[in-house]
Amino acid sequence: MCGIVGYIGARQAQDVLVSGLAKLEYRGYDSAGVAILQSEQDGGGIEVRKKAGKLANLAGELQTAPLLGTLGIGHTRWATHGLPNDTNAHPHATEDGQIVIIHNGIIENYLTLKAALMQRGHTFKSETDSEVLAHLIEEKYGQVGGNLYEAVRQALGEVRGAYGIVVTHANHREIVAARTVSPLVMGVGEGEMFLASDVPALLAYTRQMVFLHDGDMVVLHDDGFRVTDLAGNEVQRTIEHIDWDAEAAEKGGYDTYMLKEIYEQPTALTNTLIGRLHDDSGEVNLDINLDPSSFKRISIIACGTAYYAGLVGEYLIEQLARIPVEVDVASEYRYRNPLVSEDTLAIVISQSGETIDTLEALREAKKYGAKTLGVINAKGSSMTRELDDTLYIHAGPEIGVASTKAYTAMVSAMLLLALWLARARGTLDEVKAKELLHAARELPRLVEEALSPERVENIKRVAEKYAHSRDYLFLGRGVNAPTALEGALKLKEISYIHAEGYAAGEMKHGPIALIDSDLPVVVVATESRLLEKTISNVQEVRARAGKVIALLSDGDIENAQHADDVIYVPRSHEMVSPVVNVVALQLLSYFTATALGKDVDKPRNLAKSVTVE
Amino acid sequence: MCGIVGYIGARQAQDVLVSGLAKLEYRGYDSAGVAILQSEQDGGGIEVRKKAGKLANLAGELQTAPLLGTLGIGHTRWATHGLPNDTNAHPHATEDGQIVIIHNGIIENYLTLKAALMQRGHTFKSETDSEVLAHLIEEKYGQVGGNLYEAVRQALGEVRGAYGIVVTHANHREIVAARTVSPLVMGVGEGEMFLASDVPALLAYTRQMVFLHDGDMVVLHDDGFRVTDLAGNEVQRTIEHIDWDAEAAEKGGYDTYMLKEIYEQPTALTNTLIGRLHDDSGEVNLDINLDPSSFKRISIIACGTAYYAGLVGEYLIEQLARIPVEVDVASEYRYRNPLVSEDTLAIVISQSGETIDTLEALREAKKYGAKTLGVINAKGSSMTRELDDTLYIHAGPEIGVASTKAYTAMVSAMLLLALWLARARGTLDEVKAKELLHAARELPRLVEEALSPERVENIKRVAEKYAHSRDYLFLGRGVNAPTALEGALKLKEISYIHAEGYAAGEMKHGPIALIDSDLPVVVVATESRLLEKTISNVQEVRARAGKVIALLSDGDIENAQHADDVIYVPRSHEMVSPVVNVVALQLLSYFTATALGKDVDKPRNLAKSVTVE
Repeated sequence: MCGIVGYIGARQAQDVLVSGLAKLEYRGYDSAGVAILQSEQDGGGIEVRKKAGKLANLAGELQTAPLLGTLGIGHTRWATHGLPNDTNAHPHATEDGQIVIIHNGIIENYLTLKAALMQRGHTFKSETDSEVLAHLIEEKYGQVGGNLYEAVRQALGEVRGAYGIVVTHANHREIVAARTVSPLVMGVGEGEMFLASDVPALLAYTRQMVFLHDGDMVVLHDDGFRVTDLAGNEVQRTIEHIDWDAEAAEKGGYDTYMLKEIYEQPTALTNTLIGRLHDDSGEVNLDINLDPSSFKRISIIACGTAYYAGLVGEYLIEQLARIPVEVDVASEYRYRNPLVSEDTLAIVISQSGETIDTLEALREAKKYGAKTLGVINAKGSSMTRELDDTLYIHAGPEIGVASTKAYTAMVSAMLLLALWLARARGTLDEVKAKELLHAARELPRLVEEALSPERVENIKRVAEKYAHSRDYLFLGRGVNAPTALEGALKLKEISYIHAEGYAAGEMKHGPIALIDSDLPVVVVATESRLLEKTISNVQEVRARAGKVIALLSDGDIENAQHADDVIYVPRSHEMVSPVVNVVALQLLSYFTATALGKDVDKPRNLAKSVTVE
Repeated sequence: MCGIVGYIGARQAQDVLVSGLAKLEYRGYDSAGVAILQSEQDGGGIEVRKKAGKLANLAGELQTAPLLGTLGIGHTRWATHGLPNDTNAHPHATEDGQIVIIHNGIIENYLTLKAALMQRGHTFKSETDSEVLAHLIEEKYGQVGGNLYEAVRQALGEVRGAYGIVVTHANHREIVAARTVSPLVMGVGEGEMFLASDVPALLAYTRQMVFLHDGDMVVLHDDGFRVTDLAGNEVQRTIEHIDWDAEAAEKGGYDTYMLKEIYEQPTALTNTLIGRLHDDSGEVNLDINLDPSSFKRISIIACGTAYYAGLVGEYLIEQLARIPVEVDVASEYRYRNPLVSEDTLAIVISQSGETIDTLEALREAKKYGAKTLGVINAKGSSMTRELDDTLYIHAGPEIGVASTKAYTAMVSAMLLLALWLARARGTLDEVKAKELLHAARELPRLVEEALSPERVENIKRVAEKYAHSRDYLFLGRGVNAPTALEGALKLKEISYIHAEGYAAGEMKHGPIALIDSDLPVVVVATESRLLEKTISNVQEVRARAGKVIALLSDGDIENAQHADDVIYVPRSHEMVSPVVNVVALQLLSYFTATALGKDVDKPRNLAKSVTVE
């Protein structure tokens, strides 16, 4: 999640870039950089200025020694490959300084490309995949006779990965850009054009926007733009007038941060997974130093939503890697004199990396010699400084207090970890591994599908129908038992309806007493080898006149007869289904809370990151 | 879950059936029914009478218009498939009324069987899986030339599921029965035979009993019986003399079984502890064969209340004996391909020893070579026959559906087990062991003290004050975190108020959103090294206007200031305090339910012993 701004027009580019990046700074804060095409009287050429740390570092320097010029690109970075330092900061230039690029996302095959480029005489200044792209474009530029657009297009043809890319050349007064997963939006002014990774960066300058689609390329000139696909065919994109105020813009046009973040999940999951799945070999690359044979037990420690992600992780690791896992809430773990030693791997899960209970539990585990691994969203957070290893979930900033995209990204990260452990310990053969890798790779698409307008409309209808219920039960089995718990927590957090989750088979051992005709019971009953058992539990609810809201897999007409209301979700491999299924429950909570007029972004009594005990 | 009674002999069957079912009514009360083979002078044929609701409905009708005859079967039902109404009640007859059956359990493939039968011309009156069985037997009866036993045997060959089944035919003076999972016991009289799902139903008539095993079939005649397996081979079953005191099942002057059992706890705990504590040496004698050095991990498996006893056990064993323990709900464990091997000790906890989920989980653990130990109340129950070792809790018969004395006895038994393991493995020195043995020995006295009239009166006052609350939270830490969970479950079970328990430190990670001035929050804040932390959590609740009901140790005046209402409990050693503290929560639930006019002994939807999945 990095920020991008581009400008071509009559203003001083430096001003547009710095003010735009400031609006995007929440997206990344490892480093910032700009590249500006200097005017002829200043000698021409592209001048690059970049700086580790917050944008203010760079802005200060630019104030003292401004870069003059009316074409430029700028970037704030959140490190994925390579350390956050001046060298690794964007923009990246070729050796001769002629071509300068900015790149968000990950080039999966960059090592192969880099090796080939080095053999052909290129030398590299940084460790980044982005610099590889700069060199590749340089090479193509020579081959296609100095057509920048064509050079970028051909270079992207050799690249596998996800990207938003912005390119300039000292000899061209134009900006070439392209996107696959990372978002890009253009601002259309009078005699000037803007480009950014998100709307807020441009609102001070224009409200005429063009949202680029996946696979779009664009060339910006002072007086207009041209959009093509990656094959070079021209495509039409309409200019939209954005009348959001600044706050609405931060929310990307959504009513709330929470809804925005729910819809960001396909992108977030792409970022979690990208570069980590090697379909050809069935291997997972997590870029961590942990020795997978150095421990005998795993202890997962977390709070709240992250705790439920931990429960899914327990299931996946035990099933796939056959290592005993125990999951504890951090506030209990830290005071229970836990059984932990050198042969324990302690995994902490936290969005913020600051949750004090989890941080203290981590310290407790370290004290007894445990190896430690974090599953964390926020770079550079307190936990990451104390952990042996961190597996970043790359979900991007999460503002909504009720976690959504961080949860699905955490669960996906736990899946990656389970696969990695299973492969390293030989408990998962290549065929089965490839099947699961494929299932994981499908996740962004399936979650996108889970967010289709008809589905969302149906969930809204169900939510409104039951919004005035006194309480709610959520049931699930196996890998989706935690999905039920998380669904209940979400509803509790933002609607204040007392919702409780249970393993479906446990219902009849107590909570079934609550069931009457006023009680909606949400049952996660998607495709699974335990589906028949879950349907039996549904019948127990129905036999007591409870209202059943069933989450069923697409096409399961047969079991629809047992439910009062059905929410169909896209079919997914059972082991990855918690990620797909929970999206429907996030929406159910969301529309319940909005039907009741609650402020979902700021639920009462709750804080985003709990830094007190 | 359901109650079955059968009779063949010289008495009026109706009297035996109704009196027997009355003894079993705690097992199920959605509906009741009888079928009686009428005498020749009354026209012969089987007359069925059934009624939704409690047994009294049916009994009243039978008093007005008796069914005459000396062979009959009767049933009280707890709905699993289909609504509890007259049509779905047992017994079920075929269309021509010739064959009548009663069935406990679930036929998993009933939809397939039903479809095939309908295609062959059968029509159905009810939605139950049981009626399918009646029709199937009818079909077989024709095919095997009128041999009822053979017809039942062949029908069962096509059935997948769990059952206790009892069958009669208008043309045969015999009762055919079979069981797989659901229990069945025969009573042997002189010139008469009885059948029931549990012993108490028959105690008024005979004390000569035959316990049928899994897979047994039996044919009852006026003067005897014949047992075979499902393949038709004769098997021998011994007649046992049962000398139980029928008095023990009466309410003994209390309004309800539950209250009686709450007050029986000092006695029950004495029976749990007696003969097992050796204060002089600091040793515990459990009279089990388990080798305490033969395993490296412990897996505790249970359902409902017993699961919470397991959580206390986990805490105690990990703290005292330093062995890693994992606790699972049985319905999840049995299907999760659990990590279990020869170095695992699987501990199952069950009052009845019949809970099907736990029984199946036990079988799963055995399959992978785990050593097994049961913490069980009911002698001779199914689990005890399959366990390597059983640690009986000796709590005596528990009739109240909401468990009370079995819970405190289970927790005490887990304490004994933790002490025994700790001593055997050298993780607890003699001085510390003696201190804990002394604390354990104090339990009956402390629980008696917890039941003193002033304390009970105070709890009743608090219960009535908050009885009309919409929901409730229960909080506790450490060894008393499960106390909070159990307190919440109890309230849920008998008052139908949505109560939820949480580890106190976890509250701020979600459930705190529920807190407003209408929400009573019960906090277990008795003497503990974590008391200060718990009081912090109390203040978080108060800061959000929540109503605090604090369980404080006698004499803790200081912390009373933080609570709206205080329930003082006798001081006890922290490690044994869950037993003492939970008594106050049992009473809180009890008086809340009675204030609301609920039938605490027969909470809606619940059954005492859950013998279906």
